This record gives sequence, structure tokens and C-alpha cells, in this order.
Amino acid sequence: MAIQKPSLSKGTRDFSPTELAKRNYIIDKIRTEFVKFGFQPIETPSFENYETLMGKYGEEGDRLIFKILNSGNFAEKVNSTDWETKNVGKLTPQICEKALRYDLTVPFARYVVQHQNDITFPFKRFQIQPVWRADRPQKGRFREFYQCDADVVGSNSLWQEVEFVQLYDSVFTSLNLIGVTIKINNRKILSGFAEVIGESEKLIDFTVALDKLDKIGKEGVVKEMLSKGISNQAIEKINPIFSLGGSFSEKIHLLKEILKDSETGRKGIEELEFIEKAITQLSLQTAILDLDVTLARGLNYYTGAIFEVAAPEGIAMGSIGGGGRYDDLTSIFGLKGISGVGISFGLDRICLVMEELNLFPQEIGDTLDVLCINFGEKEALQSLKLIQKLRSLGKKTELYPESAKMKKQMAYADKRNIPFVVLIGESECEKESFVLKNMQTGEQKEYLINEVANEIFK
Amino acid sequence: MAIQKPSLSKGTRDFSPTELAKRNYIIDKIRTEFVKFGFQPIETPSFENYETLMGKYGEEGDRLIFKILNSGNFAEKVNSTDWETKNVGKLTPQICEKALRYDLTVPFARYVVQHQNDITFPFKRFQIQPVWRADRPQKGRFREFYQCDADVVGSNSLWQEVEFVQLYDSVFTSLNLIGVTIKINNRKILSGFAEVIGESEKLIDFTVALDKLDKIGKEGVVKEMLSKGISNQAIEKINPIFSLGGSFSEKIHLLKEILKDSETGRKGIEELEFIEKAITQLSLQTAILDLDVTLARGLNYYTGAIFEVAAPEGIAMGSIGGGGRYDDLTSIFGLKGISGVGISFGLDRICLVMEELNLFPQEIGDTLDVLCINFGEKEALQSLKLIQKLRSLGKKTELYPESAKMKKQMAYADKRNIPFVVLIGESECEKESFVLKNMQTGEQKEYLINEVANEIFK
Repeated sequence: MAIQKPSLSKGTRDFSPTELAKRNYIIDKIRTEFVKFGFQPIETPSFENYETLMGKYGEEGDRLIFKILNSGNFAEKVNSTDWETKNVGKLTPQICEKALRYDLTVPFARYVVQHQNDITFPFKRFQIQPVWRADRPQKGRFREFYQCDADVVGSNSLWQEVEFVQLYDSVFTSLNLIGVTIKINNRKILSGFAEVIGESEKLIDFTVALDKLDKIGKEGVVKEMLSKGISNQAIEKINPIFSLGGSFSEKIHLLKEILKDSETGRKGIEELEFIEKAITQLSLQTAILDLDVTLARGLNYYTGAIFEVAAPEGIAMGSIGGGGRYDDLTSIFGLKGISGVGISFGLDRICLVMEELNLFPQEIGDTLDVLCINFGEKEALQSLKLIQKLRSLGKKTELYPESAKMKKQMAYADKRNIPFVVLIGESECEKESFVLKNMQTGEQKEYLINEVANEIFK
Repeated sequence: MAIQKPSLSKGTRDFSPTELAKRNYIIDKIRTEFVKFGFQPIETPSFENYETLMGKYGEEGDRLIFKILNSGNFAEKVNSTDWETKNVGKLTPQICEKALRYDLTVPFARYVVQHQNDITFPFKRFQIQPVWRADRPQKGRFREFYQCDADVVGSNSLWQEVEFVQLYDSVFTSLNLIGVTIKINNRKILSGFAEVIGESEKLIDFTVALDKLDKIGKEGVVKEMLSKGISNQAIEKINPIFSLGGSFSEKIHLLKEILKDSETGRKGIEELEFIEKAITQLSLQTAILDLDVTLARGLNYYTGAIFEVAAPEGIAMGSIGGGGRYDDLTSIFGLKGISGVGISFGLDRICLVMEELNLFPQEIGDTLDVLCINFGEKEALQSLKLIQKLRSLGKKTELYPESAKMKKQMAYADKRNIPFVVLIGESECEKESFVLKNMQTGEQKEYLINEVANEIFK
């Protein structure tokens, strides 16, 4: 076998113990809040049948789904014309019957439909698993990344939206990530805009353009709308939304004026008001709720509320969470009339924000409390007796495996940033004692093995 | 879009909240012990470069690795003869540059080599992630399953083997899985056998046959050895090992006699004795350490100790764990002289054994402590104020989303097995109080919202 210089596949990452500790710190906080809010965990397989995933994410999505080659003689039964003409589009489903999941939402819809008779509705589930996309890798964009999703299906109640705002607030508060903005919008508001300007059939073009307001400014948005055939006159009618400012209720006030002739628009306002009033009465811990009428997030998906979370002011980072209500998710698998609403947390970006704000606990990378120095066979055996006691006290403890030079063993303790070192030499063996060295202060103290207790680690 | 009846891809599973709770219960116990023993977590990507994985698991392994089809026009640059002749063996590496990991060991070796300058050796890592194999699915065999591995690289010390025996004992004790047998053997013992019968070059055939002793009996083993060209006379020389019984030290005693002329064999005995003596002095909590000279576990891999864990007597189940020492793992990626030793836990089988012995805590599937009944908008808002307090006490709490009929809401509480229900109607709203109903006893009691505390949930 030729020796290979190993490397990672493009767009994937190894996580070292310290990096993983940080990620798991965030995941644990998210999971804890999910559970407190009554969400139940599920897991679905990494790959699904090809046809379960294809056609659910648009043409671009289909392209970005990783397909798994059939095992064995994959070419045996393919259509010979497709093979001869190298028609890869037609060949792919013939040589791949499986594909890696692209998100957690479609597999969740499949789960709900498949297990509908065992599920008690409303069903509140959370799911924290990796997903895969054949994107061109670039800074901050990976081919494998975790999604952390919480969804409720089987309830139309707006209390769900209220609870999701509270859930975002609780998670970011527990992470000590203070001052995030939870932006909210409603698909019905966007439909209302399109309606009042008489361009309902151009709803998608309209909102795709509007969604870019913070990136390309009013001028850019107007230019794009014009290029899509939306008239100057029509755009003029909704001119005030380009500079919609003030408080949540001031914005609502203006929207009522703009959308007064759209029933759909008025319904959207009513829903937003319900959520805003409840949140005002319940009050958020550290997050800010704001109305952003430009928010669309792949509009076709959402039918009611749309959420997006922005990092605290001053941190340049895209959204760190998003979600919304979708009224017909499970119908793609034949189950109609099940409304759903859900939110997602962007683990990688939250991690970057926490790094930047220095919010991880100091000791997060510390993986060992005590190292026992190895002075030889007899002493090592005695050390292992103490180690058993230390581990039963919950102390992360290990024996240095070789009776190497003291200097080497202490260097290992330093490199791993171990706070305490235990020394059991010949005389300690006889006395059934050990010397505990505090690596920070240099202080050494002797104890009997039978005296060992949590209190001595101070 | 045509409506599809959804199904899982063959050999994969959904995990419901209860199933997942059981799996996570086991994983948490394993992880807790890994951490106490000083192991550090890492994670590697789900897919690796094709050539990182291929050729590492033998021909059969190569076949079972899932390959990922290249994105875009995968057929564009393939060799035209290979395409025309449908030479799938040659085409696969041309159309697939990535593959799903087959185990955690080869990715770990890749990790060690790639990050060798950042790692402090000896490096104790653990890794709990899914792996994928294109096996024909059957009862208890899946195409996606978790591996839970702990390994140390960079130390030849036999104390590592001692610690792994203790680690197995600690994990199974903490799972309350009492009476597992940790079987141990040593590659050098097996080499010794082959040497003393003069068949060193038939070591693999010899041990593959011997490994089957508990399945096909002595007669079957002898038949297989004869068919591989090992003579009757040779087999006769090691006849005693077919019925090797008694205590660990009695077996050692007999082995010393059989292997007295093999230096390798004597070295193997010495290693086994070291481990057995240390374990005897330290004593195990609930597991039994036993010597099994037939144990081989894919011999080519291991160079020293070989471990396998059997479920408690009376439980018909293959091994629930295994591992051993391998002296040259990282050399496949160009880093020589790094000895490693590791063990693995079989999550699926441990789960089945725990089910059979009824070892999961009763409350493992309970996902909600308190449900607040929804009597309408005003009452729901008041309930959410109480819910905030309950969640901050750590109680898993939710509001029933609709003000549905009482009967429907109580049925939901029953189905989800929720122990407490909170009722806030009009009069409780006025008094700022709530009624707490114990669903098991039927008892109801009224409290002020400000009085809420953990003690009232009894």
C-alpha cells in the first residue's frame, strides 16, 4: 500500500477536543431549553431514499444534494441510451437510490407522515443532527454542518409563535449572548403589499427584491423590481416601507394604513399584533423583538410568521437563527391539513459570535483534573488505587502511562493544562499516602489515601 | 409533484423520543466514564476522501463502503474505455471522490497524522459518531449505526490495557449491567500456537478457525484446519487448548507449558499476567475478567492484547464490546512507531440487553413535567407567566396551544404521561393563583403564582 499524505475532503472539518467542547457547550444549552419548553428529541437517518429528498428544495437544492452510488454493479441495469449519451441527469436516479439529507425539515415531514398513528398531536419535536450540501466551500460555509431545529406540528395556535420568541430569548440568554434581535414578519404582510400594488402574481419577484434592502439599499431594490416588470407607480404605493422606522407599534400603525385595502394584509397585522402584545406582557429576558417587513427567507416555504435572529449590534455576522410557519409541509407525503411552525439555530455562526465576544467559560477546554505521576510498577499500582477513588468522586483522573522522567511527565501536565498532580513515590506507598501538587500555586501537601475528598482540591 | 408514500431507506432507522432517550441514556453513561478516565472527545467528518478509506478494510470492506457520487457532470472526464465497457470497478474512483466513513478508527488514524504537531502524546481520545456500511440489512444489522470508541495512541505501556479493563467494568457497572465477562487474549499467544505447531505461515487460517470454537465446536475447528492444510499431527500438539478451563491462573499455567518453546508466546503470557495481576489487586466492581485463547477478532489488526465483552450469562447476544492493541495504525498515513490500543462499545446490542433485563429507569420516556390547560386568551397569557417561573425552576412545562375542550386537553396529558396538570381559569386569573392537579392521585390543590416552588410537585 502506498503511503498517503492524509487530508480532509473539501468543505469538511475535524473538531479537536477544545473546539468540540465549545460546540457541545452551545448544543447543551440549546437542548436544555428545548426540553424545558416541552420539545421531544427524535433522530432520522443520515440518508433517505433519493425520491424522498429530490424535488423538495427547488432546482438549486436538487443539485446540492449529495447522492450515494448504489453498491455492486451499479451500471448493470441502466438505460443504455442514457449511458451511451452520458445523460447524467437521467443516469443519476438509476445509479443512486439514496441521498444524504439536505436539511432536517423534509426528513421530519417524512417522519410525521410515516409515524402519524403513533404520534400525539400537537407534536413538539427537536432534532440536532448534521446535514450535507454540495456547496462550493468558502469561509464559514461547509459541506457538513449541524442544524438545531425545534418544530411543532398539528396546531394553528399563535401561542406557538409566542413560545418560539420566548425560546430564542431563553437560549441566547442562557448562552449569555445578550442583545440579539429577533426579527419577525408575516407572509401575509408580503402578500398584502403585492396585492395593494396590484402585482399579486409577481409576489416572489417582489419579495426576493425587498429581502435585499439591507444589502443593496432602496435604489438597488427599486432597480430590481423595475427589471422584473413591476411599475414605478406600483412601487410608489409602498414607498413608505423602504424607510419604516420607529417602535414595533409605530410600524404596525403605518402598516395598517398601507394595507388597509388588503384582507390578507390585515390578517397578517392582526397576527403580528397578537404576538407582540403577548411578548410585551410576558417580557423578554435579554432579546429584542422587532418587526422587519423586508424579511422573506425563501418565501415559498412560509405561510404565516417568519423569524430571523441577528447577532448583537456591532457583530458583523449573517443571521444566527431563523424559522417560521408553514401550513402544508406534510402534504408532499400525502398528509394534508397539518400546520407547522419551527425555528432553527445556526450553530457555526453562534460559535463564531461567542468566540468574538469571549463568552465561553475559561475552563471549557480543560479535560483533566488530576494527573498521577508514574514512578514505576509498584507506585503506579498504588496510584491506580487512589485513581479509582478520585474517579468515583467525579474527578477526571489519569495515570501517566510510562515511568518516564519527571520532567517529561510534568511537561505533559503543563501542556494539557492540568490543575493538580499527584505524586506517589516509594515512601508514600509505605505510608499509604500521596502528595497533591497545585500546579498553579506550586503548593504541595500530603494526605492519606483514605482521606481523599473533594475538599482537598481547592 | 406526485404524492409519495414515504418510507425509510433499507437498513436505516428513525428514533422516536423514547427510543432516543434510551440510547442517549447509554451514551451519556459511556461518555461520563470516558471523561473520568481522561479521554478527550473529537469528531471527524462523515465523509472522507475516497482514497483515505479504500484499501484499509480488505476487499470485503472496500465493497461495503458507501461512495458518494461527484456533483455536476460526473461522467465528463471518465476514461472512455471504462465507460464503454461499463467497468464499474475502474469507474467508481473516477465518479466518486468521497465516501462515508466505515468505522471511527481509520478516520482517527488520519486525524492523528494530520494533527500530529498539535497533539500532546500519549493522546487519549474518544469518539461517538455514526458509521455506515452497505451490508445486507437483517435483524440487528443496520446500514447506519453508532460506534463508541476510546483509544490511546503514543504509549506502549500495559497500564493502558489495565485501564481499559477498568473502563469496561466502570461503564457496565454504571449501566447496572452486572456480570459481563471481559474476555482477553493476546495476538502473541496466537502467534505462539502457530509457531509451536510449525505453521507460522498459516497463522491467519489457524486463528480464523480457532475463533469459531464456541460456534462450531472442536470437531468443526479441526475439520477447517485440516482443510487449510494444517496437519493432524500439528493440531494434536495444541490439543489442550480446545478444552482449556479453570481459573485465569490455571489457564496461564497450562499455556506456559504449551508455549514454552515460543519466545513470542512467552511474551504474550507475560503481558496477560501483568494485566491479570494488576486487575486482581485493584479488583473489578461487577465484571469478570477471563482468558479466552480462541479470541482473534480480525487478527490482522491487533498486535497485542485483544478484548471482547460478553453479555451476562443467560443473555443470547453476540459481543457487546471489543478492542485491542494495534502497533502500526498510523503508518498507513506515513507516521510510524505510534502504538495504539482501544476499545469499543456496541450501542445497539447494549440497548437490546438493557431492554431484555429491564434496566432502563422507569421514567426514561417522560418528556414533560407539567401541562397547563388552555381556557382562552386571557387565561393562557396568565398561564405563560407561571410557565416562565416553572421553566426557570427546571420543570419541563408547556401550554396546550388551543383552548380545546377540557376532555381533549386531558387526553393529551394522559397520552404523554404527564404527571402534573395546571388549571388557570377566570377566578384563578383574578386571584393570581393556579390549581395543581396530580394526575396519578387525582389530588388538586390551589397555590398563588408567587408561591410556586419545586416542593409543591410531590
